[in-house]
Amino acid sequence: MALKAAAALDVELMSTGAFSIDQLMELAGLSVSQAVYRVHPPSAGRRILVACGPGNNGGDGLVAARHLSQYGYEPTVYYPKHNKNELYQRLSKQLEDLNVPFVNDFSKALADTDHVVDAVFGFSFSGEIREPFPAVIKALEETEIPVTSVDAPSSWSIEGGPPMSGVGSNFHPAVLVSLTAPKPLVKHFKGRHFIGGRFVAPSIAAKYDFEVPRYEGVDQVVEVMPGGKALVR
Amino acid sequence: MALKAAAALDVELMSTGAFSIDQLMELAGLSVSQAVYRVHPPSAGRRILVACGPGNNGGDGLVAARHLSQYGYEPTVYYPKHNKNELYQRLSKQLEDLNVPFVNDFSKALADTDHVVDAVFGFSFSGEIREPFPAVIKALEETEIPVTSVDAPSSWSIEGGPPMSGVGSNFHPAVLVSLTAPKPLVKHFKGRHFIGGRFVAPSIAAKYDFEVPRYEGVDQVVEVMPGGKALVR
Repeated sequence: MALKAAAALDVELMSTGAFSIDQLMELAGLSVSQAVYRVHPPSAGRRILVACGPGNNGGDGLVAARHLSQYGYEPTVYYPKHNKNELYQRLSKQLEDLNVPFVNDFSKALADTDHVVDAVFGFSFSGEIREPFPAVIKALEETEIPVTSVDAPSSWSIEGGPPMSGVGSNFHPAVLVSLTAPKPLVKHFKGRHFIGGRFVAPSIAAKYDFEVPRYEGVDQVVEVMPGGKALVR
Repeated sequence: MALKAAAALDVELMSTGAFSIDQLMELAGLSVSQAVYRVHPPSAGRRILVACGPGNNGGDGLVAARHLSQYGYEPTVYYPKHNKNELYQRLSKQLEDLNVPFVNDFSKALADTDHVVDAVFGFSFSGEIREPFPAVIKALEETEIPVTSVDAPSSWSIEGGPPMSGVGSNFHPAVLVSLTAPKPLVKHFKGRHFIGGRFVAPSIAAKYDFEVPRYEGVDQVVEVMPGGKALVR
């Protein structure tokens, strides 16, 4: 699905589809938390560092952190640019009530975690990595710790994949959770690939030439082939 | 948990807890859908009749119907008193987009289903069963089809359980999903009992003398003993 189509689908879900941003973000973050549970169960280490950017991708990360905490993980949130919108303030408060720590030193937190959720930039990423995020992307690029990216590996172009040079050009996360529909960048992605966001009506999907994947049972995520095609099971 | 405490906990989740009604209803309805999947998997019959009242309990039912549709069930919704609040209108629209039928004849729909979700009245039920719901409760009382009630068997008093006489006095649903915390009526309930709504922070639960049950994995519901105590597994 092209960038414009992905953006239009999101708008359509909220207008024609009548979903609120609260609902969509809750289900998106829930999907991410289920993918993390699948690739990195609590027995593999409970410490999860969730890196959140200032926009919707960061909001998905905040929701995922809450669900991970409810599953018995010990999430830590790096969220240097707090969004002033009241939804984000509420999502932060919900984490504070669960005693989830917010940390300021990303490198230090990275040295002390078992898994990372990259919710820094999503499909509305403009190509410009503002401070303090260049150092964060660089650290994610260099770490040995497995990273799960939300909707897009942060710094990647939605159409073209990783940047040709500089920060992010060598960032290849272990796991990607495409929300609603895979974006064109997935053709550059070689790791484990999940689709999440089990709320698209087939009629809306058809308009965007997007095939709703076959989810199993009550799962909110489904693992697909690296290219984006649903696994036949 | 007493009625006043249950109501206060709900208010607290939205004020101190900073949850929006959209979020809470989404997670509540999701819990109900997962309980239905557990007690009545699609292989037991895909037709699910969801009876929705005019308030929050009905809203939980609308959300559950959407998730059930996504799981591959064929839900039918009986929702005679549409709530004019925009949230409810959006939840209805989301079902229409999935081609979930809304029906007006409850008895006819009941003759043509494999399972029923009773989302007519919840914990704010006043004791008065307004039209057209007396006939609905009566039909639920008499049917052989298994019923899953949301938060309370409709017509039951939150403190005292089933009415002493008249409509509902003989209503004993097969399954109950207590949302957030079991209400006092659970001591009168003999069926399979689940708790759903995995979002309460232990600090808030402690204030209400409510023990958060031990959920498994990524589950949004947990089966407990009929009296409400969490099963030790």
